[in-house]
Amino acid sequence: MDDAALLATSGEQLVLTADTLVEGVHYLPGDPPETVGWKLAAVNLSDLAAKGATPRACMLNYALAGDTHWDAAFLDGLAEVLDRYALPLIGGDTVALPAGAPRVLSLTAIGSVPAGRRVPDRAGARPGDIIYISGPVGDAGAGLALLREDEEEPASLVAAYRTPTPDLALGQVLAPQATAMMDVSDGLLIDACRMAEASGCAIEITAIPLSADYADLHGLSVVGRLAAATAGDDYVLLAALPADSPAPDGLIAIGRCMTGAGLSVVLDGAPVTLPDRLGYEHGPGLSPDLRNHP
Amino acid sequence: MDDAALLATSGEQLVLTADTLVEGVHYLPGDPPETVGWKLAAVNLSDLAAKGATPRACMLNYALAGDTHWDAAFLDGLAEVLDRYALPLIGGDTVALPAGAPRVLSLTAIGSVPAGRRVPDRAGARPGDIIYISGPVGDAGAGLALLREDEEEPASLVAAYRTPTPDLALGQVLAPQATAMMDVSDGLLIDACRMAEASGCAIEITAIPLSADYADLHGLSVVGRLAAATAGDDYVLLAALPADSPAPDGLIAIGRCMTGAGLSVVLDGAPVTLPDRLGYEHGPGLSPDLRNHP
Repeated sequence: MDDAALLATSGEQLVLTADTLVEGVHYLPGDPPETVGWKLAAVNLSDLAAKGATPRACMLNYALAGDTHWDAAFLDGLAEVLDRYALPLIGGDTVALPAGAPRVLSLTAIGSVPAGRRVPDRAGARPGDIIYISGPVGDAGAGLALLREDEEEPASLVAAYRTPTPDLALGQVLAPQATAMMDVSDGLLIDACRMAEASGCAIEITAIPLSADYADLHGLSVVGRLAAATAGDDYVLLAALPADSPAPDGLIAIGRCMTGAGLSVVLDGAPVTLPDRLGYEHGPGLSPDLRNHP
Repeated sequence: MDDAALLATSGEQLVLTADTLVEGVHYLPGDPPETVGWKLAAVNLSDLAAKGATPRACMLNYALAGDTHWDAAFLDGLAEVLDRYALPLIGGDTVALPAGAPRVLSLTAIGSVPAGRRVPDRAGARPGDIIYISGPVGDAGAGLALLREDEEEPASLVAAYRTPTPDLALGQVLAPQATAMMDVSDGLLIDACRMAEASGCAIEITAIPLSADYADLHGLSVVGRLAAATAGDDYVLLAALPADSPAPDGLIAIGRCMTGAGLSVVLDGAPVTLPDRLGYEHGPGLSPDLRNHP
Protein backbone atom coordinates (compact mmCIF):
# COMPACT_ATOMS: atom_id res chain seq x y z
CA MET A 1 0.00 0.00 0.00
CA ASP A 2 1.21 3.51 -0.71
CA ASP A 3 1.90 5.74 2.28
CA ALA A 4 -1.10 7.92 1.57
CA ALA A 5 -4.50 7.62 -0.04
CA LEU A 6 -6.28 10.06 -2.32
CA LEU A 7 -9.88 11.20 -2.05
CA ALA A 8 -11.43 13.38 -4.73
CA THR A 9 -13.88 16.04 -3.61
CA SER A 10 -16.50 18.11 -5.35
CA GLY A 11 -17.74 20.61 -2.82
CA GLU A 12 -19.42 18.15 -0.47
CA GLN A 13 -19.07 18.36 3.31
CA LEU A 14 -16.94 15.62 4.79
CA VAL A 15 -17.71 14.12 8.18
CA LEU A 16 -14.74 12.61 10.01
CA THR A 17 -14.86 10.34 13.00
CA ALA A 18 -12.31 8.10 14.69
CA ASP A 19 -12.78 5.39 17.28
CA THR A 20 -10.41 3.12 19.12
CA LEU A 21 -11.19 -0.28 20.61
CA VAL A 22 -8.90 -1.61 23.34
CA GLU A 23 -8.80 -5.33 24.11
CA GLY A 24 -10.24 -5.94 27.55
CA VAL A 25 -11.73 -2.44 27.69
CA HIS A 26 -14.04 -2.08 24.68
CA TYR A 27 -14.33 -5.75 23.84
CA LEU A 28 -13.75 -8.99 25.70
CA PRO A 29 -10.50 -10.85 24.95
CA GLY A 30 -12.66 -13.90 24.16
CA ASP A 31 -14.94 -12.14 21.69
CA PRO A 32 -14.71 -13.72 18.22
CA PRO A 33 -12.24 -11.61 16.23
CA GLU A 34 -14.72 -11.30 13.35
CA THR A 35 -17.04 -9.44 15.70
CA VAL A 36 -14.24 -7.13 16.85
CA GLY A 37 -13.60 -6.18 13.22
CA TRP A 38 -17.32 -5.61 12.76
CA LYS A 39 -17.64 -3.53 15.90
CA LEU A 40 -14.65 -1.31 15.13
CA ALA A 41 -16.27 -0.17 11.89
CA ALA A 42 -19.81 -0.14 13.28
CA VAL A 43 -19.03 2.31 16.08
CA ASN A 44 -17.59 4.70 13.51
CA LEU A 45 -20.51 4.16 11.16
CA SER A 46 -22.83 5.03 14.04
CA ASP A 47 -21.14 8.44 14.25
CA LEU A 48 -21.62 8.91 10.51
CA ALA A 49 -25.29 7.92 10.86
CA ALA A 50 -25.78 10.62 13.49
CA LYS A 51 -24.61 13.22 10.96
CA GLY A 52 -26.76 11.90 8.15
CA ALA A 53 -23.58 11.13 6.23
CA THR A 54 -23.03 8.62 3.45
CA PRO A 55 -20.01 6.36 4.13
CA ARG A 56 -17.13 7.30 1.89
CA ALA A 57 -13.79 5.82 2.99
CA CYS A 58 -11.89 4.64 6.04
CA MET A 59 -8.35 4.24 7.35
CA LEU A 60 -7.34 1.40 9.69
CA ASN A 61 -4.62 1.58 12.32
CA TYR A 62 -4.03 -2.04 13.13
CA ALA A 63 -1.86 -3.57 15.83
CA LEU A 64 -0.51 -7.07 15.28
CA ALA A 65 -0.32 -9.13 18.45
CA GLY A 66 1.34 -12.17 16.92
CA ASP A 67 -1.75 -14.28 16.18
CA THR A 68 -2.25 -14.54 12.43
CA HIS A 69 -5.47 -16.54 12.79
CA TRP A 70 -6.94 -13.78 14.93
CA ASP A 71 -5.79 -11.17 12.42
CA ALA A 72 -7.33 -13.04 9.49
CA ALA A 73 -10.64 -13.47 11.29
CA PHE A 74 -10.66 -9.82 12.37
CA LEU A 75 -10.09 -8.75 8.78
CA ASP A 76 -12.90 -11.07 7.63
CA GLY A 77 -15.31 -9.39 10.03
CA LEU A 78 -14.08 -5.96 9.06
CA ALA A 79 -14.46 -6.79 5.36
CA GLU A 80 -18.01 -7.96 6.00
CA VAL A 81 -19.12 -4.74 7.70
CA LEU A 82 -17.28 -2.55 5.18
CA ASP A 83 -19.03 -4.44 2.40
CA ARG A 84 -22.43 -4.18 4.10
CA TYR A 85 -22.10 -0.43 4.48
CA ALA A 86 -20.13 0.24 1.25
CA LEU A 87 -17.24 1.82 3.13
CA PRO A 88 -13.95 1.30 1.23
CA LEU A 89 -10.75 0.87 3.24
CA ILE A 90 -8.25 3.16 1.53
CA GLY A 91 -5.24 3.15 3.85
CA GLY A 92 -3.85 3.04 7.32
CA ASP A 93 -0.93 1.62 9.21
CA THR A 94 -0.06 -1.80 10.58
CA VAL A 95 2.29 -2.05 13.55
CA ALA A 96 3.59 -4.84 15.73
CA LEU A 97 2.89 -4.82 19.46
CA PRO A 98 5.31 -5.95 22.15
CA ALA A 99 4.55 -9.49 23.34
CA GLY A 100 1.56 -9.65 25.65
CA ALA A 101 0.33 -6.12 25.01
CA PRO A 102 -3.44 -5.70 24.61
CA ARG A 103 -4.57 -4.88 21.11
CA VAL A 104 -5.40 -1.24 20.37
CA LEU A 105 -7.33 -0.90 17.12
CA SER A 106 -8.36 2.40 15.53
CA LEU A 107 -10.46 3.26 12.54
CA THR A 108 -11.01 6.68 11.05
CA ALA A 109 -14.14 6.89 8.91
CA ILE A 110 -15.05 9.57 6.45
CA GLY A 111 -18.56 10.25 5.29
CA SER A 112 -19.99 12.85 3.00
CA VAL A 113 -23.00 15.13 3.04
CA PRO A 114 -24.04 17.13 -0.02
CA ALA A 115 -23.06 20.79 0.02
CA GLY A 116 -25.60 22.96 1.76
CA ARG A 117 -27.42 20.09 3.46
CA ARG A 118 -27.86 20.43 7.21
CA VAL A 119 -25.47 18.40 9.38
CA PRO A 120 -27.04 18.12 12.83
CA ASP A 121 -25.11 18.12 16.06
CA ARG A 122 -26.18 17.70 19.67
CA ALA A 123 -26.65 21.41 20.28
CA GLY A 124 -29.82 22.39 18.44
CA ALA A 125 -32.73 20.92 20.40
CA ARG A 126 -35.42 23.51 21.28
CA PRO A 127 -38.18 23.57 23.88
CA GLY A 128 -41.22 21.86 22.41
CA ASP A 129 -39.20 19.40 20.34
CA ILE A 130 -40.05 15.71 20.68
CA ILE A 131 -37.16 13.41 21.58
CA TYR A 132 -36.94 10.18 19.59
CA ILE A 133 -34.75 7.12 19.61
CA SER A 134 -34.28 4.69 16.72
CA GLY A 135 -34.47 1.44 18.68
CA PRO A 136 -34.54 -0.17 22.10
CA VAL A 137 -31.67 0.36 24.51
CA GLY A 138 -29.97 -1.95 26.96
CA ASP A 139 -29.52 -4.99 24.73
CA ALA A 140 -25.77 -4.51 24.32
CA GLY A 141 -25.24 -3.96 28.03
CA ALA A 142 -27.29 -7.04 28.81
CA GLY A 143 -25.29 -8.98 26.23
CA LEU A 144 -22.02 -7.92 27.83
CA ALA A 145 -23.32 -8.98 31.25
CA LEU A 146 -24.26 -12.38 29.82
CA LEU A 147 -20.82 -12.85 28.25
CA ARG A 148 -19.16 -12.02 31.56
CA GLU A 149 -21.13 -14.94 33.01
CA ASP A 150 -20.11 -17.18 30.10
CA GLU A 151 -23.64 -17.11 28.75
CA GLU A 152 -24.31 -16.61 25.04
CA GLU A 153 -28.11 -16.62 25.11
CA PRO A 154 -30.34 -14.83 24.26
CA ALA A 155 -28.26 -14.48 21.10
CA SER A 156 -29.91 -11.18 20.16
CA LEU A 157 -28.45 -9.50 23.25
CA VAL A 158 -24.95 -10.85 22.62
CA ALA A 159 -25.21 -9.77 18.99
CA ALA A 160 -26.25 -6.28 20.07
CA TYR A 161 -23.01 -6.05 22.06
CA ARG A 162 -20.70 -7.59 19.50
CA THR A 163 -22.12 -6.58 16.14
CA PRO A 164 -24.16 -3.38 16.36
CA THR A 165 -25.90 -2.32 13.17
CA PRO A 166 -26.17 1.46 12.90
CA ASP A 167 -28.92 2.73 10.61
CA LEU A 168 -27.25 4.98 8.05
CA ALA A 169 -30.36 5.30 5.89
CA LEU A 170 -32.44 6.52 8.81
CA GLY A 171 -29.72 8.99 9.76
CA GLN A 172 -29.80 10.43 6.26
CA VAL A 173 -33.59 10.81 6.39
CA LEU A 174 -33.52 12.39 9.84
CA ALA A 175 -30.58 14.76 9.45
CA PRO A 176 -32.34 17.51 7.47
CA GLN A 177 -35.25 17.76 9.93
CA ALA A 178 -33.63 16.96 13.29
CA THR A 179 -32.86 20.00 15.43
CA ALA A 180 -30.30 17.88 17.28
CA MET A 181 -29.01 14.36 16.68
CA MET A 182 -26.35 12.08 18.10
CA ASP A 183 -25.78 8.39 18.52
CA VAL A 184 -26.30 6.70 21.88
CA SER A 185 -22.97 5.12 22.70
CA ASP A 186 -22.45 5.77 26.40
CA GLY A 187 -26.00 5.24 27.68
CA LEU A 188 -29.33 6.86 26.80
CA LEU A 189 -29.50 8.96 29.97
CA ILE A 190 -25.98 10.38 29.80
CA ASP A 191 -26.25 11.06 26.08
CA ALA A 192 -29.66 12.73 26.48
CA CYS A 193 -28.16 14.77 29.31
CA ARG A 194 -25.36 15.87 26.96
CA MET A 195 -27.89 16.87 24.32
CA ALA A 196 -29.81 18.92 26.89
CA GLU A 197 -26.62 20.62 28.08
CA ALA A 198 -25.35 21.35 24.58
CA SER A 199 -28.77 22.65 23.53
CA GLY A 200 -29.30 24.82 26.61
CA CYS A 201 -32.63 23.23 27.44
CA ALA A 202 -34.15 20.53 29.63
CA ILE A 203 -35.02 17.04 28.42
CA GLU A 204 -37.68 14.90 30.04
CA ILE A 205 -37.55 11.19 29.24
CA THR A 206 -40.92 9.48 29.58
CA ALA A 207 -40.25 6.14 27.90
CA ILE A 208 -37.33 3.74 27.78
CA PRO A 209 -38.03 1.22 24.99
CA LEU A 210 -36.82 -2.32 25.61
CA SER A 211 -36.49 -5.31 23.31
CA ALA A 212 -38.58 -8.41 23.98
CA ASP A 213 -35.46 -10.40 24.87
CA TYR A 214 -34.31 -7.74 27.28
CA ALA A 215 -37.73 -7.53 28.92
CA ASP A 216 -37.92 -11.33 29.19
CA LEU A 217 -34.59 -11.39 30.99
CA HIS A 218 -34.80 -8.30 33.16
CA GLY A 219 -38.49 -7.47 33.31
CA LEU A 220 -40.11 -4.10 32.77
CA SER A 221 -39.50 -2.65 36.23
CA VAL A 222 -38.22 0.88 36.63
CA VAL A 223 -34.92 -0.59 37.80
CA GLY A 224 -34.68 -2.74 34.66
CA ARG A 225 -35.50 0.20 32.44
CA LEU A 226 -32.98 2.48 34.14
CA ALA A 227 -30.33 -0.23 33.78
CA ALA A 228 -31.06 -0.35 30.04
CA ALA A 229 -30.89 3.44 29.77
CA THR A 230 -27.46 3.64 31.42
CA ALA A 231 -25.75 0.62 29.87
CA GLY A 232 -24.24 2.11 26.74
CA ASP A 233 -23.01 0.54 23.49
CA ASP A 234 -26.48 0.86 21.98
CA TYR A 235 -25.50 2.68 18.77
CA VAL A 236 -29.03 3.85 18.11
CA LEU A 237 -29.89 7.39 17.06
CA LEU A 238 -31.16 9.99 19.51
CA ALA A 239 -32.91 12.84 17.72
CA ALA A 240 -34.90 15.95 18.58
CA LEU A 241 -37.58 16.86 16.04
CA PRO A 242 -40.00 19.79 16.04
CA ALA A 243 -43.39 18.71 17.38
CA ASP A 244 -45.01 19.37 13.99
CA SER A 245 -42.40 17.37 12.08
CA PRO A 246 -43.62 13.91 11.03
CA ALA A 247 -41.36 11.22 12.48
CA PRO A 248 -40.03 8.71 9.95
CA ASP A 249 -40.80 5.01 10.44
CA GLY A 250 -38.55 3.31 12.96
CA LEU A 251 -38.50 6.12 15.47
CA ILE A 252 -39.86 5.81 18.98
CA ALA A 253 -40.90 8.96 20.88
CA ILE A 254 -39.29 8.85 24.33
CA GLY A 255 -39.63 12.37 25.69
CA ARG A 256 -39.60 16.06 25.06
CA CYS A 257 -37.43 19.09 25.23
CA MET A 258 -38.49 21.90 27.62
CA THR A 259 -37.23 25.24 28.79
CA GLY A 260 -34.84 24.88 31.70
CA ALA A 261 -31.83 22.69 32.13
CA GLY A 262 -30.87 19.13 32.90
CA LEU A 263 -32.42 15.72 32.50
CA SER A 264 -35.47 14.28 34.19
CA VAL A 265 -37.09 10.88 33.88
CA VAL A 266 -40.81 10.21 34.37
CA LEU A 267 -41.88 6.57 34.08
CA ASP A 268 -45.43 5.25 34.45
CA GLY A 269 -46.49 8.80 35.29
CA ALA A 270 -44.17 9.17 38.28
CA PRO A 271 -40.90 11.08 38.52
CA VAL A 272 -37.91 8.77 38.86
CA THR A 273 -34.83 9.60 40.92
CA LEU A 274 -31.88 9.57 38.54
CA PRO A 275 -29.24 6.96 39.23
CA ASP A 276 -25.81 8.27 40.28
CA ARG A 277 -24.33 6.86 37.12
CA LEU A 278 -26.12 7.95 33.92
CA GLY A 279 -23.85 5.98 31.60
CA TYR A 280 -20.28 5.54 30.60
CA GLU A 281 -18.12 8.51 31.52
CA HIS A 282 -15.06 9.04 29.36
CA GLY A 283 -11.68 9.84 30.77
CA PRO A 284 -10.29 13.36 30.79
CA GLY A 285 -10.06 13.39 27.00
CA LEU A 286 -8.11 15.96 25.09
CA SER A 287 -7.15 19.19 26.73
CA PRO A 288 -9.53 21.99 25.80
CA ASP A 289 -6.55 23.99 24.54
CA LEU A 290 -5.59 21.35 22.07
CA ARG A 291 -9.13 20.80 20.84
CA ASN A 292 -9.16 24.22 19.31
CA HIS A 293 -5.59 24.15 18.19
CA PRO A 294 -4.18 25.94 16.28
CA MET B 1 -15.81 17.30 21.62
CA ASP B 2 -18.56 16.23 19.26
CA ASP B 3 -18.39 12.67 17.94
CA ALA B 4 -17.54 13.78 14.44
CA ALA B 5 -15.79 16.69 12.75
CA LEU B 6 -16.75 18.52 9.59
CA LEU B 7 -14.46 19.43 6.72
CA ALA B 8 -15.69 21.58 3.87
CA THR B 9 -14.41 20.78 0.39
CA SER B 10 -14.30 22.67 -2.87
CA GLY B 11 -13.10 20.22 -5.47
CA GLU B 12 -9.58 19.76 -4.14
CA GLN B 13 -7.89 16.38 -3.88
CA LEU B 14 -7.50 15.15 -0.32
CA VAL B 15 -4.48 13.15 0.76
CA LEU B 16 -5.03 10.86 3.76
CA THR B 17 -2.38 9.17 5.81
CA ALA B 18 -2.39 7.43 9.19
CA ASP B 19 0.50 6.38 11.38
CA THR B 20 0.71 4.61 14.70
CA LEU B 21 3.52 4.83 17.25
CA VAL B 22 3.88 2.03 19.80
CA GLU B 23 5.79 2.61 23.02
CA GLY B 24 8.94 0.54 23.00
CA VAL B 25 8.63 -0.14 19.27
CA HIS B 26 8.55 3.25 17.53
CA TYR B 27 9.86 5.31 20.40
CA LEU B 28 11.80 4.61 23.55
CA PRO B 29 9.81 4.50 26.81
CA GLY B 30 12.25 7.11 28.16
CA ASP B 31 11.83 9.56 25.28
CA PRO B 32 10.47 12.91 26.48
CA PRO B 33 6.70 12.82 25.90
CA GLU B 34 6.84 16.18 24.10
CA THR B 35 9.01 14.54 21.45
CA VAL B 36 6.60 11.61 21.11
CA GLY B 37 3.81 14.08 20.39
CA TRP B 38 6.02 15.84 17.87
CA LYS B 39 7.06 12.62 16.18
CA LEU B 40 3.53 11.25 15.86
CA ALA B 41 2.49 14.27 13.81
CA ALA B 42 5.82 14.59 11.98
CA VAL B 43 5.72 11.07 10.54
CA ASN B 44 2.27 11.81 9.11
CA LEU B 45 3.36 15.21 7.83
CA SER B 46 6.24 13.48 6.07
CA ASP B 47 3.69 11.42 4.12
CA LEU B 48 1.82 14.61 3.19
CA ALA B 49 5.11 16.21 2.09
CA ALA B 50 5.75 13.30 -0.27
CA LYS B 51 2.44 14.04 -1.99
CA GLY B 52 3.05 17.75 -2.24
CA ALA B 53 0.02 18.29 -0.02
CA THR B 54 -0.83 21.23 2.20
CA PRO B 55 -1.69 20.16 5.76
CA ARG B 56 -5.41 20.49 6.36
CA ALA B 57 -6.62 18.67 9.48
CA CYS B 58 -5.87 15.71 11.70
CA MET B 59 -7.58 13.25 14.04
CA LEU B 60 -5.87 11.83 17.13
CA ASN B 61 -6.52 8.40 18.63
CA TYR B 62 -4.98 8.71 22.06
CA ALA B 63 -4.48 6.03 24.69
CA LEU B 64 -4.30 7.12 28.32
CA ALA B 65 -1.86 5.08 30.39
CA GLY B 66 -2.62 6.70 33.72
CA ASP B 67 0.14 9.35 33.78
CA THR B 68 -1.40 12.80 33.46
CA HIS B 69 2.00 14.54 33.43
CA TRP B 70 3.05 12.41 30.49
CA ASP B 71 -0.24 13.14 28.72
CA ALA B 72 0.10 16.89 29.26
CA ALA B 73 3.67 16.94 27.97
CA PHE B 74 2.71 14.78 24.98
CA LEU B 75 -0.08 17.20 24.13
CA ASP B 76 2.33 20.14 24.47
CA GLY B 77 4.69 18.57 21.95
CA LEU B 78 1.81 17.70 19.67
CA ALA B 79 0.45 21.24 19.89
CA GLU B 80 3.89 22.60 19.00
CA VAL B 81 4.25 20.55 15.83
CA LEU B 82 0.63 21.15 14.80
CA ASP B 83 1.21 24.87 15.24
CA ARG B 84 4.49 24.78 13.34
CA TYR B 85 2.87 23.03 10.38
CA ALA B 86 -0.56 24.70 10.65
CA LEU B 87 -2.36 21.36 11.01
CA PRO B 88 -5.54 21.74 13.07
CA LEU B 89 -6.62 18.87 15.29
CA ILE B 90 -10.34 18.46 14.59
CA GLY B 91 -11.28 15.25 16.36
CA GLY B 92 -10.38 11.78 17.47
CA ASP B 93 -10.89 9.45 20.36
CA THR B 94 -9.36 9.09 23.81
CA VAL B 95 -9.37 5.70 25.48
CA ALA B 96 -7.97 4.26 28.69
CA LEU B 97 -5.48 1.40 28.55
CA PRO B 98 -5.32 -1.49 30.99
CA ALA B 99 -2.64 -0.96 33.64
CA GLY B 100 0.87 -1.58 32.33
CA ALA B 101 -0.08 -1.73 28.65
CA PRO B 102 2.27 0.05 26.25
CA ARG B 103 0.87 3.20 24.70
CA VAL B 104 -0.45 2.92 21.15
CA LEU B 105 -0.93 6.35 19.59
CA SER B 106 -2.41 7.00 16.16
CA LEU B 107 -2.86 10.11 14.10
CA THR B 108 -4.70 10.43 10.83
CA ALA B 109 -3.64 13.47 8.83
CA ILE B 110 -5.44 15.02 5.89
CA GLY B 111 -3.77 17.24 3.36
CA SER B 112 -5.07 18.89 0.25
CA VAL B 113 -3.81 19.36 -3.28
CA PRO B 114 -5.53 21.71 -5.74
CA ALA B 115 -7.78 20.01 -8.27
CA GLY B 116 -5.90 18.88 -11.34
CA ARG B 117 -2.45 19.19 -9.80
CA ARG B 118 -0.27 16.12 -10.05
CA VAL B 119 0.02 13.98 -6.92
CA PRO B 120 3.14 11.84 -7.30
CA ASP B 121 3.49 8.30 -6.02
CA ARG B 122 6.38 5.87 -6.00
CA ALA B 123 5.50 4.29 -9.33
CA GLY B 124 6.40 6.86 -11.98
CA ALA B 125 10.21 6.95 -12.19
CA ARG B 126 11.55 6.49 -15.74
CA PRO B 127 14.94 5.46 -17.10
CA GLY B 128 17.08 8.56 -17.39
CA ASP B 129 15.54 10.27 -14.37
CA ILE B 130 17.88 11.60 -11.71
CA ILE B 131 17.23 10.38 -8.16
CA TYR B 132 17.36 13.05 -5.46
CA ILE B 133 17.08 13.15 -1.71
CA SER B 134 16.18 16.20 0.40
CA GLY B 135 18.76 15.73 3.15
CA PRO B 136 21.31 13.43 4.70
CA VAL B 137 20.29 10.01 5.97
CA GLY B 138 21.36 8.02 9.00
CA ASP B 139 21.11 10.73 11.63
CA ALA B 140 17.95 9.32 13.22
CA GLY B 141 19.32 5.78 13.29
CA ALA B 142 22.54 7.05 14.84
CA GLY B 143 20.50 9.02 17.36
CA LEU B 144 18.53 5.93 18.35
CA ALA B 145 21.77 3.97 18.77
CA LEU B 146 23.12 6.72 21.02
CA LEU B 147 19.97 6.75 23.16
CA ARG B 148 20.19 2.99 23.58
CA GLU B 149 23.65 3.57 25.07
CA ASP B 150 22.27 6.35 27.31
CA GLU B 151 24.11 8.97 25.27
CA GLU B 152 22.37 12.20 24.22
CA GLU B 153 25.19 13.76 22.19
CA PRO B 154 25.59 14.80 19.44
CA ALA B 155 22.23 16.46 20.04
CA SER B 156 21.53 16.82 16.31
CA LEU B 157 21.43 13.04 15.90
CA VAL B 158 19.11 12.56 18.88
CA ALA B 159 16.88 15.35 17.57
CA ALA B 160 16.76 13.69 14.15
CA TYR B 161 15.37 10.57 15.84
CA ARG B 162 12.97 12.28 18.20
CA THR B 163 11.75 15.36 16.35
CA PRO B 164 12.01 14.94 12.58
CA THR B 165 11.11 18.01 10.53
CA PRO B 166 9.57 17.05 7.19
CA ASP B 167 9.82 19.70 4.50
CA LEU B 168 6.27 20.40 3.33
CA ALA B 169 7.24 23.42 1.23
CA LEU B 170 9.82 21.43 -0.70
CA GLY B 171 7.32 18.65 -1.26
CA GLN B 172 4.87 21.14 -2.75
CA VAL B 173 7.53 22.50 -5.11
CA LEU B 174 8.69 19.03 -6.16
CA ALA B 175 5.33 17.31 -6.60
CA PRO B 176 4.39 18.79 -9.97
CA GLN B 177 7.72 17.89 -11.58
CA ALA B 178 8.69 14.65 -9.82
CA THR B 179 8.00 11.49 -11.82
CA ALA B 180 8.03 9.57 -8.53
CA MET B 181 8.26 10.72 -4.93
CA MET B 182 8.03 9.17 -1.46
CA ASP B 183 9.40 9.82 1.97
CA VAL B 184 12.29 7.78 3.34
CA SER B 185 10.96 6.22 6.51
CA ASP B 186 12.31 2.68 6.48
CA GLY B 187 15.82 3.29 5.11
CA LEU B 188 17.08 4.89 1.91
CA LEU B 189 18.02 1.60 0.27
CA ILE B 190 14.78 -0.24 0.95
CA ASP B 191 12.68 2.77 -0.03
CA ALA B 192 14.69 3.31 -3.23
CA CYS B 193 14.26 -0.38 -3.94
CA ARG B 194 10.50 0.02 -3.52
CA MET B 195 10.49 2.99 -5.90
CA ALA B 196 12.40 0.94 -8.49
CA GLU B 197 10.00 -1.99 -8.14
CA ALA B 198 6.88 0.15 -8.31
CA SER B 199 8.26 2.05 -11.30
CA GLY B 200 9.41 -1.04 -13.20
CA CYS B 201 12.94 0.21 -13.60
CA ALA B 202 16.37 -0.06 -11.98
CA ILE B 203 17.81 2.51 -9.60
CA GLU B 204 21.53 2.99 -9.12
CA ILE B 205 22.59 4.86 -5.97
CA THR B 206 25.95 6.58 -6.31
CA ALA B 207 25.95 8.86 -3.27
CA ILE B 208 24.77 8.53 0.31
CA PRO B 209 24.85 12.00 1.85
CA LEU B 210 25.79 12.19 5.53
CA SER B 211 25.58 14.98 8.07
CA ALA B 212 28.76 16.36 9.60
CA ASP B 213 27.80 14.95 13.00
CA TYR B 214 27.12 11.53 11.55
CA ALA B 215 30.42 11.54 9.65
CA ASP B 216 32.32 12.69 12.77
CA LEU B 217 30.87 9.79 14.72
CA HIS B 218 30.88 6.99 12.17
CA GLY B 219 33.33 8.16 9.49
CA LEU B 220 32.80 8.14 5.77
CA SER B 221 33.60 4.50 5.10
CA VAL B 222 31.39 2.44 2.84
CA VAL B 223 30.22 0.55 5.94
CA GLY B 224 29.28 3.80 7.66
CA ARG B 225 27.43 5.03 4.60
CA LEU B 226 25.54 1.77 4.15
CA ALA B 227 24.56 1.86 7.82
CA ALA B 228 23.15 5.34 7.27
CA ALA B 229 21.27 4.21 4.16
CA THR B 230 19.58 1.32 5.93
CA ALA B 231 18.77 2.91 9.30
CA GLY B 232 15.34 4.40 8.63
CA ASP B 233 13.37 7.12 10.39
CA ASP B 234 14.94 9.78 8.15
CA TYR B 235 11.72 11.43 6.93
CA VAL B 236 13.46 13.08 4.00
CA LEU B 237 12.02 13.13 0.49
CA LEU B 238 13.18 10.72 -2.20
CA ALA B 239 12.28 12.01 -5.66
CA ALA B 240 12.90 11.09 -9.28
CA LEU B 241 13.10 14.04 -11.67
CA PRO B 242 13.63 14.07 -15.41
CA ALA B 243 17.31 14.75 -16.24
CA ASP B 244 16.37 18.07 -17.89
CA SER B 245 14.28 19.25 -14.93
CA PRO B 246 16.08 21.79 -12.76
CA ALA B 247 16.32 20.55 -9.18
CA PRO B 248 15.05 22.95 -6.51
CA ASP B 249 17.43 24.11 -3.80
CA GLY B 250 17.87 21.64 -0.99
CA LEU B 251 17.98 18.54 -3.15
CA ILE B 252 21.01 16.27 -3.38
CA ALA B 253 21.45 14.05 -6.46
CA ILE B 254 22.18 10.53 -5.27
CA GLY B 255 21.72 8.34 -8.33
CA ARG B 256 19.77 7.60 -11.44
CA CYS B 257 17.01 5.51 -12.84
CA MET B 258 17.86 3.01 -15.58
CA THR B 259 16.18 0.34 -17.65
CA GLY B 260 16.15 -2.98 -15.87
CA ALA B 261 15.12 -3.89 -12.38
CA GLY B 262 16.34 -3.73 -8.84
CA LEU B 263 18.67 -1.59 -6.80
CA SER B 264 22.41 -1.21 -7.15
CA VAL B 265 24.88 0.88 -5.17
CA VAL B 266 28.12 2.27 -6.55
CA LEU B 267 30.29 4.20 -4.07
CA ASP B 268 33.63 5.84 -4.84
CA GLY B 269 33.38 4.39 -8.31
CA ALA B 270 33.12 0.77 -7.21
CA PRO B 271 30.05 -1.48 -7.03
CA VAL B 272 29.04 -2.26 -3.49
CA THR B 273 27.55 -5.57 -2.39
CA LEU B 274 24.13 -4.80 -0.95
CA PRO B 275 23.68 -5.63 2.72
CA ASP B 276 21.19 -8.40 3.54
CA ARG B 277 19.00 -5.90 5.30
CA LEU B 278 18.12 -2.84 3.20
CA GLY B 279 16.05 -1.17 5.92
CA TYR B 280 13.08 -1.69 8.14
CA GLU B 281 10.74 -4.40 6.86
CA HIS B 282 7.15 -4.06 7.93
CA GLY B 283 5.08 -6.94 9.18
CA PRO B 284 2.57 -8.71 6.98
CA GLY B 285 0.37 -5.64 6.79
CA LEU B 286 -3.19 -5.75 5.57
CA SER B 287 -4.36 -8.62 3.51
CA PRO B 288 -4.29 -7.78 -0.20
CA ASP B 289 -7.98 -8.67 -0.37
CA LEU B 290 -8.91 -6.09 2.18
CA ARG B 291 -6.77 -3.37 0.66
CA ASN B 292 -9.02 -3.25 -2.34
CA HIS B 293 -12.21 -3.79 -0.45
CA PRO B 294 -14.98 -3.39 -1.33
